[in-house]
Amino acid sequence: MIPTLKVKPSSQLLKLEDYIINHSCDIELWFRNQWKEYQPPFYASVDLRNSGFKLAPVDTNLFPAGFNNLCDTFLPLSIQAASIAIEKICPEAKKVMIIVESHTRNIFYLKNIYALSEIIKNSGLEVKIGTLDPEISESFFLKIKKNLSIKIEPITRNGNNVSIKVDNKNFYQPCAIILNNDLSGGEPEILKGITQNVIPPLRAGWHKRKKSDHFTQYNKVVSEFSQFTNIDSWLINPYFEKLDNLNFQERKGENELASIVSNMLQNISKKYKEYNITQEPYVVVKANSGTYGMGIMIIKNSEDVLNLNRKIRKKMSVIKGGEVVTEVIIQEGIHTEETIEESVAEPVIYMIDRFVVGGFFRVHTTKEKDENLNSPGMHFIPQPFETSCIMPDQGRPCDDEANRFYAYGVIARLALIAASRELQE
Amino acid sequence: MIPTLKVKPSSQLLKLEDYIINHSCDIELWFRNQWKEYQPPFYASVDLRNSGFKLAPVDTNLFPAGFNNLCDTFLPLSIQAASIAIEKICPEAKKVMIIVESHTRNIFYLKNIYALSEIIKNSGLEVKIGTLDPEISESFFLKIKKNLSIKIEPITRNGNNVSIKVDNKNFYQPCAIILNNDLSGGEPEILKGITQNVIPPLRAGWHKRKKSDHFTQYNKVVSEFSQFTNIDSWLINPYFEKLDNLNFQERKGENELASIVSNMLQNISKKYKEYNITQEPYVVVKANSGTYGMGIMIIKNSEDVLNLNRKIRKKMSVIKGGEVVTEVIIQEGIHTEETIEESVAEPVIYMIDRFVVGGFFRVHTTKEKDENLNSPGMHFIPQPFETSCIMPDQGRPCDDEANRFYAYGVIARLALIAASRELQE
Repeated sequence: MIPTLKVKPSSQLLKLEDYIINHSCDIELWFRNQWKEYQPPFYASVDLRNSGFKLAPVDTNLFPAGFNNLCDTFLPLSIQAASIAIEKICPEAKKVMIIVESHTRNIFYLKNIYALSEIIKNSGLEVKIGTLDPEISESFFLKIKKNLSIKIEPITRNGNNVSIKVDNKNFYQPCAIILNNDLSGGEPEILKGITQNVIPPLRAGWHKRKKSDHFTQYNKVVSEFSQFTNIDSWLINPYFEKLDNLNFQERKGENELASIVSNMLQNISKKYKEYNITQEPYVVVKANSGTYGMGIMIIKNSEDVLNLNRKIRKKMSVIKGGEVVTEVIIQEGIHTEETIEESVAEPVIYMIDRFVVGGFFRVHTTKEKDENLNSPGMHFIPQPFETSCIMPDQGRPCDDEANRFYAYGVIARLALIAASRELQE
Repeated sequence: MIPTLKVKPSSQLLKLEDYIINHSCDIELWFRNQWKEYQPPFYASVDLRNSGFKLAPVDTNLFPAGFNNLCDTFLPLSIQAASIAIEKICPEAKKVMIIVESHTRNIFYLKNIYALSEIIKNSGLEVKIGTLDPEISESFFLKIKKNLSIKIEPITRNGNNVSIKVDNKNFYQPCAIILNNDLSGGEPEILKGITQNVIPPLRAGWHKRKKSDHFTQYNKVVSEFSQFTNIDSWLINPYFEKLDNLNFQERKGENELASIVSNMLQNISKKYKEYNITQEPYVVVKANSGTYGMGIMIIKNSEDVLNLNRKIRKKMSVIKGGEVVTEVIIQEGIHTEETIEESVAEPVIYMIDRFVVGGFFRVHTTKEKDENLNSPGMHFIPQPFETSCIMPDQGRPCDDEANRFYAYGVIARLALIAASRELQE
């Protein structure tokens, strides 16, 4: 099932989608040339928003945790892409270890780990699942469904390698470590200086990574892409600004934030006027590092920044891992106008290496379209894409299912290029 | 639907399948190492036979013509693999031309061309379809189903390039030429010395290629593969011998042929005794170059070679393109014991670059299990594989659907490596 757009897509967005569908060969050639220069991350997911007048990424995750939400039909696509990624990064690899998030028994996350490990196993590698949690000293099983458990094992450091103890004599020594832990809590001691391949590299973790760096790169990618599409890059790019030296608890930096928000709201208004958009502009303030929808607020009026109540200030102060927020990005909000049975639906695109392997909609039944759909504790209903994202069809309307998904895949890959440049040493 | 084996798989074959499923990681690593040394053909299909005691390739086609028979569900897998192949062979390519078989209006073949062109188009390339037929001077359309035609266009040579005339001023000049014409009639003048990439290279055509070269390479590949599987290589390798200086019309070489056949039947008998196989051994005599099931005969008794009637001698003398047969290979016959609703079913595996992208069963409702299922004019019913060939599942029986298909994919890839070595300059 594909969501319906509540609003009629604007003529500008249709023009862009139309361009993308009818110039898929030019676009693919453009991508091929990009991948000659940049090394894509091992995997990534990109959250998109489609407002009917704008189609753009709002977040790029380098530790995707929803492989269980992809349509089973396209699993072979993930397997094939993973085998290509492995072949390129570590062709001699036979054994890998997936490092999972610590302290979680979230059934959906564990199902993701199972799905990911199956993909990697089928791409021809032995897989074990390791945890960084120092409190875990013994392997244990977590049940993910009837008759199916996954085994989580503690990691051991031996010299410049990490391994998993098999018995008193034997260690499982992986050739590569696949991180599915976003390192919000910092670079783990046990992984520092190991000689094994770490995929993605440690610097991709949220202890180092900044959303502002990502969107700075995205700006450049979009500007290059827009040169040949000859379409206003704003249609695929949300405004953003960065602000540091903040302290929400101590109300430090509130005025600067209010001023940036005010400017951005004005800029959005101008664009809305230009395109005859009657929606109310809003911005999203997010911690510059971090994920899980923590440290995020929606602002429609710059004065609201000056009147944040204690609860919101507290919420904005700390993100996952207990890190204090001192830097934020202020990002243009994109109204989600896609709905499935009246519920807001946000597409998430999954990529392995440079390939779009699938996606799903986060469908939320209670939230409003301008709320963040990835907030903590949120129980979205995943709706897997039932069509692949790699089959543009010039013979059909540009907002036809396969074509819309192809356009999603193109925009998501622009964010992927941004991530590649961001991670480049 | 998966065919049922009429016979119980032998313990040896089950042991092999079991090994393949349970050592898929070692096998994939072995393949990864092969592909570091050898460049796989752009595409290939491999005809397999499963006799319940033996699973082996009987033919490897470098101009596969059944893309229309693959399951639509796995189309994205072909697209992704094609994009990898193109990226590697000619990353700068934007336009390609598929050269089709001349003189054919066979609807199934045309559907294959349409399916192939869609795969390549979706992998991000412009595609036009060219013909070598010198009698065709104007583009024309051939209808392949309601509201769907394909356009076949004559090819023009300009200097060191071939192109398709668009109008009086413009030419469509492809960066690469994809051959789907097996060149049985010889190397076409118009393609000689062109600077464009020809995929697969001209030397892959049946004017040059010899089955005996392929199976010589296959022998070596299987011997290497068997070293680490530690299983009798005969289980996946049919005996073969080559014989040249033949002339069936003039009865030249009949005695030599009879002697080879006699020896081979004895060798097969020995193996049958070793494995307690009660089937009647047979061999297949095939033109050493050529395809379409022409120039093929089944022999169960070496004396039959000396008593070939005029009709058979005539049939064996000439293959597609009118070429005279002077060389044959004598190949151990493999009983097809797979059946779908009482009909003999022969698996065909499709590969693009080094990836198994799907397959189908050639199901024939009238032929016997020891007859050739690819004989001229034969109207087989294709039964697409409904499961991909890349998902071995150690948790399930080794002859489970996904696992049997995985084993098929492994054996087919052994033949693919043989083809890679065969084509290596």
